[in-house]
Amino acid sequence: MDIDQKTALKLVKPHLTNKRYIHTVGVMNTAVNLAHRYEVNTNKAKMAAIFHDYAKYRSVEEMREIIQKNGWDERFIQFNNELLHAPAGSYLVEKEIGIKDSEILSAIFWHTTGKANMDPLEKVIFLADYIEPNRNFPGVKEVREQAEVDLDRAVLMALHNTVLFLMSKEEPVFPETLHAYNDLVLEISKQNKKG
Amino acid sequence: MDIDQKTALKLVKPHLTNKRYIHTVGVMNTAVNLAHRYEVNTNKAKMAAIFHDYAKYRSVEEMREIIQKNGWDERFIQFNNELLHAPAGSYLVEKEIGIKDSEILSAIFWHTTGKANMDPLEKVIFLADYIEPNRNFPGVKEVREQAEVDLDRAVLMALHNTVLFLMSKEEPVFPETLHAYNDLVLEISKQNKKG
Repeated sequence: MDIDQKTALKLVKPHLTNKRYIHTVGVMNTAVNLAHRYEVNTNKAKMAAIFHDYAKYRSVEEMREIIQKNGWDERFIQFNNELLHAPAGSYLVEKEIGIKDSEILSAIFWHTTGKANMDPLEKVIFLADYIEPNRNFPGVKEVREQAEVDLDRAVLMALHNTVLFLMSKEEPVFPETLHAYNDLVLEISKQNKKG
Repeated sequence: MDIDQKTALKLVKPHLTNKRYIHTVGVMNTAVNLAHRYEVNTNKAKMAAIFHDYAKYRSVEEMREIIQKNGWDERFIQFNNELLHAPAGSYLVEKEIGIKDSEILSAIFWHTTGKANMDPLEKVIFLADYIEPNRNFPGVKEVREQAEVDLDRAVLMALHNTVLFLMSKEEPVFPETLHAYNDLVLEISKQNKKG
């Protein structure tokens, strides 16, 4: 596939509410900025951002079925319906839009939970979704500032805040989100020892 | 083995500092109270409490070796040296003291990290270690109060506080600790739906 920005936005728009579309454009602009800053392929960042919420308004049943038939982690289904649209989206974006690039699809797959050993594109999309300009919740300003200077630390802050937020509501925390946190803590601690 | 309280305390004392011995007696008294309240075998609770920190002052090398030769989760070694004494202790208590009871040994094994699907004895020891009267840190009072009325909720609070504390210091969180949290969140949410 080779889709330009205008075409991609036109393709995703009918699948989103107006508010979600504005969020998507925010994620796109933020992801492109981050991609420039951290030497990630900007076209891949743009495509992953535009389509990251593609499945957001599909039915829970359809999304669960996609996860089951692909043999993906059943905990996406058990933990929280908010987690379904990311893996389901990666499947539907391939099937319905025709995007085959495994890096773009993986960035969509993991944009809500994060995972251990994220590649730079996955980090950029996870972070852009968290800090895009329309986001407004306690702590987002600090993560935005950190994102200007250190991708790993900014992702770590976002993961940390996500775990705290879920725990404050007594909700389960997807294990890969903790693995992502642990992975970055150990990685940053290694970098500090080297530095 | 059948050891009375006096003998057990005499056996553990040489392995602990004075401060740690006072903590151990605190855990013993708290565990016995909790065991009474939540219908757990009080003798098992007493033995697990007395010996829970048996390995606390062994060398890191000895404890790592025990974990490796038993084929236990390598993350006990990777994450934080504070985690080693619990699994190492369960091994040494069996070998050196002769306690064979698998429930007592498992309560010692998991007393620091917690785990998913803890049995009542494991919960009692985990919680007693957290709230015994010599403990003094932010939030312990609320967990003590909760422990008077609801074992699961008190354990959940202790796990929650533990994760927050580690994250505030940017330290890794042992995955089983999160699994323990998730397990109790889902369990309590099921109980609420039933009730």
